[in-house]
Amino acid sequence: MDLLERLQWRYATKKMNGTQVPQEKIDRILEAARLAPTSSGLQPYEIFVVTNQEIKEKIKPVAWDQEQITDCSHLLVFAAWDNYTEERINHMFDLTNEIRGFKNEGWENYRQMLLSSYPQRTPEENFIHTSKQAYIGFSAAITAAAFEEVDATPMEGFDPAAVDEILQLKEKNLKSVLLLPLGYRDAENDWLEPLTKIRKSKEAFITEIK
Amino acid sequence: MDLLERLQWRYATKKMNGTQVPQEKIDRILEAARLAPTSSGLQPYEIFVVTNQEIKEKIKPVAWDQEQITDCSHLLVFAAWDNYTEERINHMFDLTNEIRGFKNEGWENYRQMLLSSYPQRTPEENFIHTSKQAYIGFSAAITAAAFEEVDATPMEGFDPAAVDEILQLKEKNLKSVLLLPLGYRDAENDWLEPLTKIRKSKEAFITEIK
Repeated sequence: MDLLERLQWRYATKKMNGTQVPQEKIDRILEAARLAPTSSGLQPYEIFVVTNQEIKEKIKPVAWDQEQITDCSHLLVFAAWDNYTEERINHMFDLTNEIRGFKNEGWENYRQMLLSSYPQRTPEENFIHTSKQAYIGFSAAITAAAFEEVDATPMEGFDPAAVDEILQLKEKNLKSVLLLPLGYRDAENDWLEPLTKIRKSKEAFITEIK
Repeated sequence: MDLLERLQWRYATKKMNGTQVPQEKIDRILEAARLAPTSSGLQPYEIFVVTNQEIKEKIKPVAWDQEQITDCSHLLVFAAWDNYTEERINHMFDLTNEIRGFKNEGWENYRQMLLSSYPQRTPEENFIHTSKQAYIGFSAAITAAAFEEVDATPMEGFDPAAVDEILQLKEKNLKSVLLLPLGYRDAENDWLEPLTKIRKSKEAFITEIK
């Protein structure tokens, strides 16, 4: 199967069968998210990989009781920085200098530009921006899961404050944004599995400006 | 190359060489975005594919004069719905019923739930949500471009109001959110090309909860 065939094959799996996903597939899915681009390369989010069944049982009721939370193999929780701080911005710029082994004037000016703008914005505004970056990694993970022929259920619908509490994210200055259960479809018991994928037509979705 | 090798290969290309990307590759990149999941399947954004050089020249100065805007082969503009309306929500639910050929009570209840909540929120809140969905398609396009060995430059940095004006998006109740020039790297003249890709370590990015 090529990439597009796999993207056709994937769907928001509603019923999973509890089978474990091999660790090397999980690793490749996470690596796709880690490699995903983010604004100014800040990677302002982290991923929590929940396999602990008790924790999954605690998350399920605050995620509309969706069974994929507990029937999945690995539950990914995407948690974004609650704010941009000087420390966080400096950390990524310092890491860049350390790995590349040199300082660059243009890059240092860019650091100062971010330092003089991001931390001054409201935490709410910054969290919207960090959350959007998490969506980039989330989508990369969804695509990579399909490529690995692993099922996934993209989820926005849950109580983020409750998940933050369960995973103690506030202490890390993170806020949960998205959930992605990974596992394998229970096709016979999944109402959505046999239904046609619905997308807007190319004509409605794409406009060429020639 | 496998998917991860291609994701390692990609980078935010700073200098493109003007070479045209074959249409079949553009089509596959756009198809990956079209197939990307969105919240409730509403696909609340559209993609404009700009190949008109005059329009690209107009966009360049409102996008920090970044040369990729004009040196790229195809400039993708991701534009999100400015708001959720009853009409837009009904359109996607009606399309679903039409394609699948039946009405489903659970699905109709879900439609009513969205109709009784989304249009009542502020346009600002809704636009944040529609924008986030555009990030999912944007990331799918970035991954698909890498898979096709096509270079791309993910861009948030531009004046959206000015781009909206150039592309007359207000008339369509859309707002530009993201730009993605597609093309081929001019490796010799791209300062970023030889530099090591910087990402947080796995340990800093991923936390296992076993």
